[in-house]
Order: sequence, then structure tokens, then C-alpha cells
Amino acid sequence: MHLDYQPITLNLETPFRIAHGTSLVRENVLVRIRAAGLEGLGEAAPVRQHHETQAGVMDYLAGLELPGDPFLLEEVMASLPPGSQAAKAAIDMALHDLQGKMLGVPLYRLWGLNPARAPETSFTLGLGPVAEVEAKARAAAERFSILKLKLDADEAGCLALVRAVRAAVDSRLVADANCAWTVDQALRLIPALADLGLEWIEQPLAEEDLEGLRKLHPESPLPIFADEPVRTARDIPRLAGCVDGVNIKVMKAGGLREAQRMIAVARAHDLQVMLGCMMETSVGITAAAHLAPLVDWADLDGNLTVTNDPFIGVLVEKGKLILPDGPGLGVRPRPAPAGTEDSGAKT
Amino acid sequence: MHLDYQPITLNLETPFRIAHGTSLVRENVLVRIRAAGLEGLGEAAPVRQHHETQAGVMDYLAGLELPGDPFLLEEVMASLPPGSQAAKAAIDMALHDLQGKMLGVPLYRLWGLNPARAPETSFTLGLGPVAEVEAKARAAAERFSILKLKLDADEAGCLALVRAVRAAVDSRLVADANCAWTVDQALRLIPALADLGLEWIEQPLAEEDLEGLRKLHPESPLPIFADEPVRTARDIPRLAGCVDGVNIKVMKAGGLREAQRMIAVARAHDLQVMLGCMMETSVGITAAAHLAPLVDWADLDGNLTVTNDPFIGVLVEKGKLILPDGPGLGVRPRPAPAGTEDSGAKT
Repeated sequence: MHLDYQPITLNLETPFRIAHGTSLVRENVLVRIRAAGLEGLGEAAPVRQHHETQAGVMDYLAGLELPGDPFLLEEVMASLPPGSQAAKAAIDMALHDLQGKMLGVPLYRLWGLNPARAPETSFTLGLGPVAEVEAKARAAAERFSILKLKLDADEAGCLALVRAVRAAVDSRLVADANCAWTVDQALRLIPALADLGLEWIEQPLAEEDLEGLRKLHPESPLPIFADEPVRTARDIPRLAGCVDGVNIKVMKAGGLREAQRMIAVARAHDLQVMLGCMMETSVGITAAAHLAPLVDWADLDGNLTVTNDPFIGVLVEKGKLILPDGPGLGVRPRPAPAGTEDSGAKT
Repeated sequence: MHLDYQPITLNLETPFRIAHGTSLVRENVLVRIRAAGLEGLGEAAPVRQHHETQAGVMDYLAGLELPGDPFLLEEVMASLPPGSQAAKAAIDMALHDLQGKMLGVPLYRLWGLNPARAPETSFTLGLGPVAEVEAKARAAAERFSILKLKLDADEAGCLALVRAVRAAVDSRLVADANCAWTVDQALRLIPALADLGLEWIEQPLAEEDLEGLRKLHPESPLPIFADEPVRTARDIPRLAGCVDGVNIKVMKAGGLREAQRMIAVARAHDLQVMLGCMMETSVGITAAAHLAPLVDWADLDGNLTVTNDPFIGVLVEKGKLILPDGPGLGVRPRPAPAGTEDSGAKT
């Protein structure tokens, strides 16, 4: 199999602020694997908290030899050297895309899933001044029925923000604290957020504070999801009894196959499953979306604020994920908007 | 989809004695599902310890409607009423067989697996007088490199049997105690069996004695596998820390898909995986064998002592599992032996 890759800079519609910092652009890597005259697409979105970078992904991919064919996926993935999980995810996606293209079926069908079972995706609103988030919420409420608010350590600020958004829109609301709170803060904030109608809280405490989660979990009136401590299937057993669910991200898992294993492990521990993402083009988001029929919650909005996404794949209609029915990922190049190139259509 | 089923009585080459009793025949059920002009095959081997019977399987299947198509497997399985796990396994197998036949690929390929990675299968020798087991061991050693001995509560008898077999053959030896021992017996027997070169022990203690396993496990010089307590993925987390591995059986799991989930859960808990079986035709054994590239140990000998197996599928050559390369399960009707019918070939 022949592997190619190229860097891609994603421009974001709005600067995206989270507890860890601010992003204006994201630097990802597109992967193409050719086999049997077909091309499989994959994408690596480096996870900065895991010290991954675009350059690191490209270093990992440089000179990599992929043995066998796309149907030896398990073996090909096992043959990869340790290193970038995002790069591995891109390879796994491209191999799955090739499998589907060689067999002429979309991935969800290859996996025995009904695309109509995919849950609605939430849409995430970055941290910001109340008026700004409120305005974004009003706009997003037109297109999504579930909005995810990012919250930080400012307790009064969190409550003011949620009250304002709650008053502004009828949407279902959920929140992600990105490790910002102490146990005491969480014990004060979560009941107040429950009173305001929030449905769940993601990662209220520090990544490694399982002890804190064990205290918080039985007291919390809202379901708690773990995010930062969840990378691969081996991370899940120790979270059982600490949280109600886990947020699984293909980029951290190192591929769709490991993500499937993670879903199985979460279910065996009676955990709810959310499918999350990074800032990605429609390649990465569509790949994850093919798994959505297996999960309870989808947070697959990472392509929606990218202004230069070169691809079209999964679509969102009133929050509903509409999976493409083409073979493999079903992703295709995005046609250039009328007037942006000398295409002869300029009339 | 159209579902058909028929009872089948398997005749066994030798009466098969285990701690729970003796078997001369086994009464299974063959399932056929038709869709898109093709037929998928499945088999239900009722698990008597779970109070399953051939009649119970047929009652479960009677009048069952299967919605959708074989590629909606997840949904079809979720739509089945509670009840016979063996019947569900047969349906799941037949749907997988149909998927593979519709796409023209063997199951292992659909699952991204390399059939060359399947471990050798062990061959099981039933309980019996020492001389009889020793003779069976000599015969089996010609065709298998790993022999599994059934052991019971008679400590001196166990040791005499293992010593005799050890002296008679060069094969690798493993043993299954089928819940027969107390913790104290196991603590005496396992070191002695280790000295005789056994490689692992399956289910030394009573099915529910996890407390006992927790005591035995750190003291045991041999890896311990759980069998009886392992039915579906949810049974596995509580076994972590009690044993070194689990024996997964498709008939107890209720299908290949659940078996795959179980393998993922076992791996997340750092458990070794063995793939076991019931007495089955080549339909059920071949279905399980397609999963073998994912596991450490295969104990897929349930069709080898059936004298009237109507099918040919996975073959065994010197213990090595040779998966068929036909689409789906790759199972086909066994040609009648020359001379048994008026075929015109009688010359």
C-alpha cells in the first residue's frame, strides 16, 4: 500500500476559547493510502494536551511502510511503531475508507449499523463574555437542539453564563468544565446547573482526580462524563464507578477500530458513551460519525466552524447527523463555491 | 428476511464425559436465513448448564420475524426478545454469513483479520480410566500439539492421569477442572501439575467462587482461565484480578458480535483470551474460528468427534486451524462419502 500525507491548516470561523487556551487555526494532516487502484482518506488532528503536533504527525508518517492490504487492518495497525495516536487514527480511517470502497459499501453498513440510529450532535459554544456566548447560542439554536457550553473556574461567571443562555434559547443544554473545578466547586455548581436544566457535565475535575470523582459522583444530581482521562480502551475500567459515561475521541483512541473496542468496554461497565472530536475537516468528523449509531451522545461539530474544509461528508440537519451513503467514509471533495475560480460558471 | 430452522442430532465418536455428566449425542438446531437470494447458515448448540434445550431453541425461533437486512445486524440483534443465547448466536452467525456472501468476502476479511494468525487449537480428552485417556492421548498427539485434559475432584486420580499422559506423549498439555476443586485442593494440585509441565488450568473452582479465585490466583504457578462464569461482556470486568484469562464461547455470548465485544473487554483488563465451543457441526465451529486471529488460545475441537457433521468448514492440520476462503462463513455441505449413495460415481 502507498501512503501519502500533506499538512492542512484549518481556518476557524470564530476563535475557539477553552480552559486550556485559544485557537484561531488548527494544523492537521491529511493522509491518503492507495491500494487496488483506489484511494482511502484519513485525517490526523494532533492533540496538543498529549504533546502532539502537525510536525510530529508528519515525522511519524515519514517513510512508514504499510504491509499487506486494507483487509489486514488489525495486523497493519499492530505493526505500527509507538507514537502519534492521531497519525494512527488517520491510517486506520484511510484503511477503513479503502475497505468500504473496495466492497462498495458505506462504513456504517460494513459495521452492521443503522445510520438512522445516530443521535443528534450537540454544538459547542466556546468560552467568552456572556453577551457573546448568548448571541452565539441564539444563532446555534436555529441549527441544533443541544448546545454544549464551555465553563471555567469562575463560579459566579459560570452561573451567569448559563442563566443568560437558558433565558435566551429553548435548546437542551449540556456543559464541559475541561478540568476546571475542585470537588467543592463541583458540589456547589452542579446542583445549581441542574436547577437551570443542564443535562450533564463533562470533566468537572482535574484529569487525574479519580478520587475526587469518586466523591462527587454519588452526590451529583447530573450525569458526569469523563473526557481527558479517556484515551484508549485500557483507560475505561478504572473510570467505572467514578463517572456515568465517557467521551471517546477517535484521534486519542488511535482509530475507529480502537474506538469500537472502547464502546464495547464502556458498555460492559454500564457507562454511557459520548463520541467527541477535535477541530477536523469532514474527513475525520465523518469517520467518527459512522460510529454514532452505537453511542448515546454525539459531539461531532469539529468541522462546522472550519471555513476552508476541503471536503463534504456527514451533514447536520437540525442537529441530526446525516451520514453519506457513498462507499467507505463517503467523503468527497467540496465543490468550489460559484465565483471563486475561473470555472466558466462565472455568469 | 426469511428464517428457517431444523433440529439436528450430532453423533459423537466417543462418549464424552465431563464433571457434569456424559454425552453420547448432542441435539442442536441449524438455522437458515434467506435474503437477497442468498442463504446464511447458523447453528445453535443449547448450553445445558444454562437450562437450554433443543426444544427451547426451536420454541424461541418459532414465528420470529427478522426486520431489515443482514447489514442492520446490530439492530436485528437488539430487536430479539430475551431468551435462548444459543438461538441468538445462530441468528447472528447466519446474518454474518449473509453479509459475507453478499459482499463476496470471508468473514475474517470483513473483520480485518489475518487467518494465518489463528492459534493452534487444543484437542480435549474426556474424563475416563487412565489407560483409556492415555490411549486417546497417543492417538490425538498425531494430529494436535496441544491436548486438554479434563480433571475431576479425585486428586490422586488427577495426578496419576496427568503423569501417565505426560509419559505417553510429547504434546503440550493444559487442563480443565470444570469447577471440581476447592481452594485447598487447587493450592495442592496446581503446583504439582505445573511440575508435570501443564501450561494452564481452566475453571478450578466453583462457578461463583470469585472469592476463592482471588485467593488462588496470586498463589498459582500456572495461569488460570475462567470458563463457567463467562457468558457475555458484562461478566468480564469482575473477573479481572481473579484470573489470568477468560474462555469465550459464541453460544453463551449469543453471537459473534458479542464475542468480539468480549474480546475487547478482556483485552482492556489485560486478560488472555481463549475461544471455546460446545459440541457443534462445522457451522458453529467455523463461525467461531473466524475470530481466532484475535485470541491467544483456541479450543475449537467440537466438530472433530462428530461422526455425522453435514458440513465442511474450518479444517485442522497438525492442530493449525485452516480457515476456508469462501465468502461468509465459507461452510459448504459435506460431500457424501463414496459408496454411500447411488451417485453414478460408484465404479
